[in-house]
Amino acid sequence: MTALLLIIVGGLCAVAYGIFTINDVMRRDAGTQRMQEIAGAIAEGAQAYLRRQYLTIAVVGILLFALLAYFLGLKVGIGFLIGAVLSGAAGFIGMNVSVRANVRTAQAATQSLGGGLDVAFKSGAVTGMLVAGLALLGVALYYTYLTRYAGLAPASRDVIDALVALGFGASLISIFARLGGGIFTKGADVGGDLVGKVEAGIPEDDPRNPATIADNVGDNVGDCAGMAADLFETYAVTLVATMVLAAIFFSGQTAVEGRNVLETMLLYPMAIGAACIVTSIVGTFFVRLGANQSIMGALYKGLIGAGILSIAAIAAINFVMFGGFATRFTTNTGATFTSLGLFLCAAIGLVITALIVVITEYYTGTNFRPVKSIAQSSVTGHGTNVIQGLAISLESTALPAIVIVGGIIATYSLAGLFGIAIAVTAMLALAGVVVALDAFGPVTDNAGGIAEMAGLPKEVRKSTDALDAVGNTTKAVTKGYAIGSAGLGALVLFAAYTSDLDYFIKNADQYTYFRGVTVDFSLSNPYVVVGLLLGGLIPYLFGGIAMTAVGRAAGAVVEEVRRQFREKPGIMKGTDRPDYGRAVDMLTRAAIKEMVVPSLLPVLSPVVLYFVILVIAGKGQAFAAVGAMLLGVILTGLYVAISMTSGGGAWDNAKKYIEDGHHGGKGSDAHKAAVTGDTVGDPYKDTAGPAVNPAIKITNIIALLLLAILAHS
Amino acid sequence: MTALLLIIVGGLCAVAYGIFTINDVMRRDAGTQRMQEIAGAIAEGAQAYLRRQYLTIAVVGILLFALLAYFLGLKVGIGFLIGAVLSGAAGFIGMNVSVRANVRTAQAATQSLGGGLDVAFKSGAVTGMLVAGLALLGVALYYTYLTRYAGLAPASRDVIDALVALGFGASLISIFARLGGGIFTKGADVGGDLVGKVEAGIPEDDPRNPATIADNVGDNVGDCAGMAADLFETYAVTLVATMVLAAIFFSGQTAVEGRNVLETMLLYPMAIGAACIVTSIVGTFFVRLGANQSIMGALYKGLIGAGILSIAAIAAINFVMFGGFATRFTTNTGATFTSLGLFLCAAIGLVITALIVVITEYYTGTNFRPVKSIAQSSVTGHGTNVIQGLAISLESTALPAIVIVGGIIATYSLAGLFGIAIAVTAMLALAGVVVALDAFGPVTDNAGGIAEMAGLPKEVRKSTDALDAVGNTTKAVTKGYAIGSAGLGALVLFAAYTSDLDYFIKNADQYTYFRGVTVDFSLSNPYVVVGLLLGGLIPYLFGGIAMTAVGRAAGAVVEEVRRQFREKPGIMKGTDRPDYGRAVDMLTRAAIKEMVVPSLLPVLSPVVLYFVILVIAGKGQAFAAVGAMLLGVILTGLYVAISMTSGGGAWDNAKKYIEDGHHGGKGSDAHKAAVTGDTVGDPYKDTAGPAVNPAIKITNIIALLLLAILAHS
Repeated sequence: MTALLLIIVGGLCAVAYGIFTINDVMRRDAGTQRMQEIAGAIAEGAQAYLRRQYLTIAVVGILLFALLAYFLGLKVGIGFLIGAVLSGAAGFIGMNVSVRANVRTAQAATQSLGGGLDVAFKSGAVTGMLVAGLALLGVALYYTYLTRYAGLAPASRDVIDALVALGFGASLISIFARLGGGIFTKGADVGGDLVGKVEAGIPEDDPRNPATIADNVGDNVGDCAGMAADLFETYAVTLVATMVLAAIFFSGQTAVEGRNVLETMLLYPMAIGAACIVTSIVGTFFVRLGANQSIMGALYKGLIGAGILSIAAIAAINFVMFGGFATRFTTNTGATFTSLGLFLCAAIGLVITALIVVITEYYTGTNFRPVKSIAQSSVTGHGTNVIQGLAISLESTALPAIVIVGGIIATYSLAGLFGIAIAVTAMLALAGVVVALDAFGPVTDNAGGIAEMAGLPKEVRKSTDALDAVGNTTKAVTKGYAIGSAGLGALVLFAAYTSDLDYFIKNADQYTYFRGVTVDFSLSNPYVVVGLLLGGLIPYLFGGIAMTAVGRAAGAVVEEVRRQFREKPGIMKGTDRPDYGRAVDMLTRAAIKEMVVPSLLPVLSPVVLYFVILVIAGKGQAFAAVGAMLLGVILTGLYVAISMTSGGGAWDNAKKYIEDGHHGGKGSDAHKAAVTGDTVGDPYKDTAGPAVNPAIKITNIIALLLLAILAHS
Repeated sequence: MTALLLIIVGGLCAVAYGIFTINDVMRRDAGTQRMQEIAGAIAEGAQAYLRRQYLTIAVVGILLFALLAYFLGLKVGIGFLIGAVLSGAAGFIGMNVSVRANVRTAQAATQSLGGGLDVAFKSGAVTGMLVAGLALLGVALYYTYLTRYAGLAPASRDVIDALVALGFGASLISIFARLGGGIFTKGADVGGDLVGKVEAGIPEDDPRNPATIADNVGDNVGDCAGMAADLFETYAVTLVATMVLAAIFFSGQTAVEGRNVLETMLLYPMAIGAACIVTSIVGTFFVRLGANQSIMGALYKGLIGAGILSIAAIAAINFVMFGGFATRFTTNTGATFTSLGLFLCAAIGLVITALIVVITEYYTGTNFRPVKSIAQSSVTGHGTNVIQGLAISLESTALPAIVIVGGIIATYSLAGLFGIAIAVTAMLALAGVVVALDAFGPVTDNAGGIAEMAGLPKEVRKSTDALDAVGNTTKAVTKGYAIGSAGLGALVLFAAYTSDLDYFIKNADQYTYFRGVTVDFSLSNPYVVVGLLLGGLIPYLFGGIAMTAVGRAAGAVVEEVRRQFREKPGIMKGTDRPDYGRAVDMLTRAAIKEMVVPSLLPVLSPVVLYFVILVIAGKGQAFAAVGAMLLGVILTGLYVAISMTSGGGAWDNAKKYIEDGHHGGKGSDAHKAAVTGDTVGDPYKDTAGPAVNPAIKITNIIALLLLAILAHS
């Protein structure tokens, strides 16, 4: 119980950090009347959108809650609710801090770059810590309730099902929030740019553009709340999947050489999470602008600090929980490894994080070949810019894939499947500080917008622009991290699926549905190939639908803005005020409407596949096809998502590189071509690409729940 | 022997058709002096390029021949040579007909649309029939030699290895020709357009553009010779893989109820090929312009005619070879099926072909939603055009994937793995007529260019343009067909790999390398996941490199053309002639240089993976990882290739749709945006996408050869 208590204290630290930091941020100067007005409009729009989004999700959520409670019992239903509510809360609180920090960042930037960085980063850190803290608390507290108060055995099916349902709740919010927020933010961004920059010839964030508030709202609901939900899900799902594996691998090992191995292994991933929350909080204090005024350097100090402290902390945990590095464990499936092996797996997880950060920065940073090559190719026109961008986006998948493969081989050699799970757990344990880097982006983006609209001096905009450029890279970095960890995490989920299935088949006396079922997961089974192919299709189809949705939403924004310009000629002269609210309203409706169908694609696919193959070829092949689908969706999903997020980031920064005065600078033909690339990259990197991430995991979670439901039938 | 003789006669029919039709085409009027001059320059450039390409391939080829002959014996080496030489010959002859037919098509089009169609289609049909005929003859004659004269048993390892090496020879030519030709043609096309249309403001194919001859050369070396090599490979490799499966599944069944099942099953795929060559030739006579002047309709008549006749022919083969539909067979692995089942599998193969044709036409034809949506999105600019194009390209993978999955399930249920193989064989048996539809494209494209450069009347250009627009769709259709069949064909190759491996392990007494090896192809084996991930990477990395190469080649063309304009100001005034040869030369060097490294990627990947995993985890896991790599490359390759070829075709026709007068027509802003989309689509659909196809198969073939070499070691 002491360990559990300490884990909960770790989670509470994050919440305490959040409350303390929110107060700190709110105490800052909120600027002039005009700035507060603008920020108020953004906040209002963002809150209105989120309210509507959550209401829509609630309809689906209540239906699913009822289904889960009916099929799997109330505890499972409640697990689902906890996941959904906490994920929603993390996004909601984060977004609310973000819409208040933006104006304070703009105001602080009037004094100094360091001041602006401080406010923006702290606001991002609130979101980051809440994501990690609430996810850990949700899992840990519900686990405590189930095993300590509801009297369930730690590795019992009821506990596993309830925790998986918690992950599913988080997944549900995540896919809707990522997609809905993504469509909103990029519809506003692309549409606003097209009609403002291109048609009317007014700069970005010009207050005369009726879509400008919507654009800033989008940053908060997409890049802040959407991203928070995504990482919350990845965190929760990974933790749960690792615990499911621990339950299966160590079930029955309650007294090995005087040690309750099962319980310890169930707690170990949560302990890593708790310790890393503390080290992440400490890491945030390392973020400080050095003498060289490098913003990226300041942020990296925090990340590196947190990483190194985490390695030390995990080593300490191994000593306390396993009594040193030498202790040896054997899973029920026969794999053996030592405590040192597990520690090394965790360390490898952190190394993977570091490598993915470095690789993503290489592909999206303005100092390296990829971005420079896109900028260079802009000189010969729109077409060559896009060709080179696509080439880079395809190429950028190679190194992350090799790193992930290396990670799989190394951790599997050290500690089998459980080793892979521990590596991903460690990767995600740093979510607090990584999300902080990302959530800082929309705040600075908004601060720039507010500075522009409120007519603050040019230098302020320069400071916020510098912060914003770094935000582009950190956003890409977080996405690389999220998808990398999702790829590895999904492998853990797949392992959970096969292990679960194994368990049900072995205990078919109790779970009669599985009587006489044999499953052949071999690649030479054509139903496995069928599952792989159909799984592989999901990210493509999903991505296609998401891109179309953004195009449609952007088109609607263009129409709306044109209408306002036509009906109120005073807007362009500055004598009449545009109706910002209508654009926000319209996008809200469009995003909510467009998010539902594609979100259901990964939810329904495994279920439909299961029943179709069941009819054609029986239970065994149906389970094989569904299992293969899970790997298929990871396989293409990983490549689709990495190529989209890295490629999009590279396009964006190629534009910034040209705006910095290369190849003719702003207004040159090369710049126009680069704007096209940036426009293409927008839905790539901020809608379709990141939304593939929850799509991968929700497919996996649904498969696990399907097994549970069939087992109960 | 009678059956073999008839098969060889079938192959010879194709050759006879080729000789007869070449004479027919060459007898046509070759137009004015000026037209012949231009055509001469194109022919010269194309021949020079192909000579250089084959020389380069020869260096690699001789090295590989030596390696194969050393490790696996002279018969295997010679098999490799036969495949390489015949593939090269098909491309070379086809290209030579094409560069003579272009000017004759232009001349015929001065009389009537039907006349132009006749010459162009016949020229394409020569290439088509030679591809199918030479591939069939190569396999059939070498098989005859090996089993009838060299005294080898039909299912012996030596025969299998020699035939696989024949496939490898074809693959080698294919990957180089597709990639080299693709880089040449799109480098010329993109570069020429950028500097001509965009910078200098002169129309396409304007004789003042120094890159214009290179552009026309590219059509012949890329779209004609490259495509021919690709389909030759797919045909040969599929035939060989089906025969390898037959050898493994029916080995020893030389006297079942008075029937030599083994020999019959080995001949069956070749018999299908021979019969369908005859039906394809008959089909070409159905191609005739109807009263409605629909070119697409005329071509479809040929395809549908050939398809229906083929079904009847295959039914007849089943009656002759298997003595009716009721005969029952049992493979050595225990699967049983009837002659009717095999016939139905072949019929399903033809249905898949039809469905893929229809789906591809839907996604790339100007009459349907996808192309119209891209045209519509061009109204709001370059960015939205590209976004919608990418959305369509992602979406376009869904239906083909579902068709392929349906095909796998249906044929596997009917006749197991051998059923899948027979379906692909039947699909490819129609290659003659399908390639004819495709190879007709570059001829009409060239004819248009010649008409423009020779200053023929506007109506001629209108006729050739109408032919060219249809060529865009048929090109996309053939690519869809090629990649669809490659996807299914690669499954057959994968089955050949696992069956081969199985065979070696079972006979480890003889093949000592395989002693004690056990291979776990289950998805829960992490090395399988590693193989899948790395296999999945190949199409991405390969595609990225190919796109970059096109961008670089196009950039070089832009520089060269700018230099000529600068140094010879008379060119633009029409008083000085541009130096066409330099652009051709430069592109030749660039394409040859750029094709080598990416071509080696799929060749070396399985070998490197095998030895790396061998060191880390031993033989069993190394075989598992390589096997998984084969499926991984199919899985992402299928999606990457379909999305690129369909998306590219849709972009191209969206531009044509606007040029037909929609959304403002030629010269409008929407048209400019559509030109950008077309430029992006060019390397997508003509370089990277189609080259993925041979990349998939070469990876698989190399894996089979690796097994053979290890077995001999």
